Amino acid sequence: MLTKNQIKLIKQLHQKKYRNLYQTFIVEGEKNVLEFLNSSFECENIYFLKSQNNFLKNSKAIEVKDDQLKQMSALSTPNDCLAIFKIKPNDEEINANIVLVLDQIQDPGNLGTIIRLCDWFGVEHVVCSPDTVDVYNPKVIQATMGSLSRVHVHYLPLNDFLKSTSLPIYGTFMSGSSIYEEKIEKGCIVMGNEANGISAAVEKLIAKKISIPRFGKIQKTESLNVAVATTICLNEVFRFRL
Amino acid sequence: MLTKNQIKLIKQLHQKKYRNLYQTFIVEGEKNVLEFLNSSFECENIYFLKSQNNFLKNSKAIEVKDDQLKQMSALSTPNDCLAIFKIKPNDEEINANIVLVLDQIQDPGNLGTIIRLCDWFGVEHVVCSPDTVDVYNPKVIQATMGSLSRVHVHYLPLNDFLKSTSLPIYGTFMSGSSIYEEKIEKGCIVMGNEANGISAAVEKLIAKKISIPRFGKIQKTESLNVAVATTICLNEVFRFRL
Repeated sequence: MLTKNQIKLIKQLHQKKYRNLYQTFIVEGEKNVLEFLNSSFECENIYFLKSQNNFLKNSKAIEVKDDQLKQMSALSTPNDCLAIFKIKPNDEEINANIVLVLDQIQDPGNLGTIIRLCDWFGVEHVVCSPDTVDVYNPKVIQATMGSLSRVHVHYLPLNDFLKSTSLPIYGTFMSGSSIYEEKIEKGCIVMGNEANGISAAVEKLIAKKISIPRFGKIQKTESLNVAVATTICLNEVFRFRL
Repeated sequence: MLTKNQIKLIKQLHQKKYRNLYQTFIVEGEKNVLEFLNSSFECENIYFLKSQNNFLKNSKAIEVKDDQLKQMSALSTPNDCLAIFKIKPNDEEINANIVLVLDQIQDPGNLGTIIRLCDWFGVEHVVCSPDTVDVYNPKVIQATMGSLSRVHVHYLPLNDFLKSTSLPIYGTFMSGSSIYEEKIEKGCIVMGNEANGISAAVEKLIAKKISIPRFGKIQKTESLNVAVATTICLNEVFRFRL
């Protein structure tokens, strides 16, 4: 039996302050929940509709009604299941040749897509400025499609991190040397905020500015979506390694 | 003065059937509205908050109150302006070396991102299956960031279009020859639905199957987001042309 109070507690997890307080987060949808169950994240509970019989035998699973799931869900069209997982302490050492660094990414869909993309290319560490959108935001989790279980996301003051790393530091700007002419063997690749790009404080620490040249005939497009720009950069870094 | 009835009419434009009926669509946010004003789309009205003084002198602009804009907006956090534009009859001839073809793309954010991406690479024609999400959906328009004014989007039965084109037809699949080893000078590039890929009927018309090879060490990632996959494909097509 699910009480009103439990629903309220779950709903609170839509907000970062409660996720930090309870150290738990929401995962929605069968594919996502199954990916997290098959990871090092610890599951607290699964809430599922009668129609979703994949979780029937799971001791942590509780059948709920449509309207209960709707109340708990952070989606406008809820899925057929929702699970609560524990936030993992992030003490993984950042030890890799390619590290993606995000400076104030605000859109949850962008962060989720970027994490999924890192998983695809095998980038295991993403360092975010503390004011980047929270990775445990339900919309981020939704967009990661389970890949968060394989990519380590660190929230660190970028100044400190970039000063401490021994990797070369690349940053993407509107102008800089063409990404198509760079061969990046190792390095930190810094991507900036959706509207404002890389902040002035972080720009000072960039050793090499890179840019994505434009193609369009009219060349009116001002910028690329940050997830798309990250795709092009990582593709250029990894396409030579195949 | 904005009447309740006018607000109701604008709100109806969130739905495709009313967009088709009135042949108009919503554009939100200053940047988007300015891009559409500076295009071949015809503006009917602009509704703006007092704080947004960019439209003060525009004869089509009407100042509205916060709660009125909120009622009209399709966004959970409305911008400071919203405009109504006329749908354009799409009679542009599809005459290009590279045509992007979308088979049943469902997510508005994905379609919008793909259109913005086409604008970046100078791809002028996108052909969508009739069951692809409507390009005039406010969430698609939002994600295009104005680029729809430069990319022609056609809704056509893909069977008919692909049978009639003289371009070579490439399709992206989980397996096929590596996109990194193809040099596509001209062709239709078909991208499939988010969950199911390219439909069986369309698959029959594909002359060459291509795929994006995986990189990750663990290689658990099942797929890429379709906008990300389109980015990688178009990047591979155009990077050699710089």
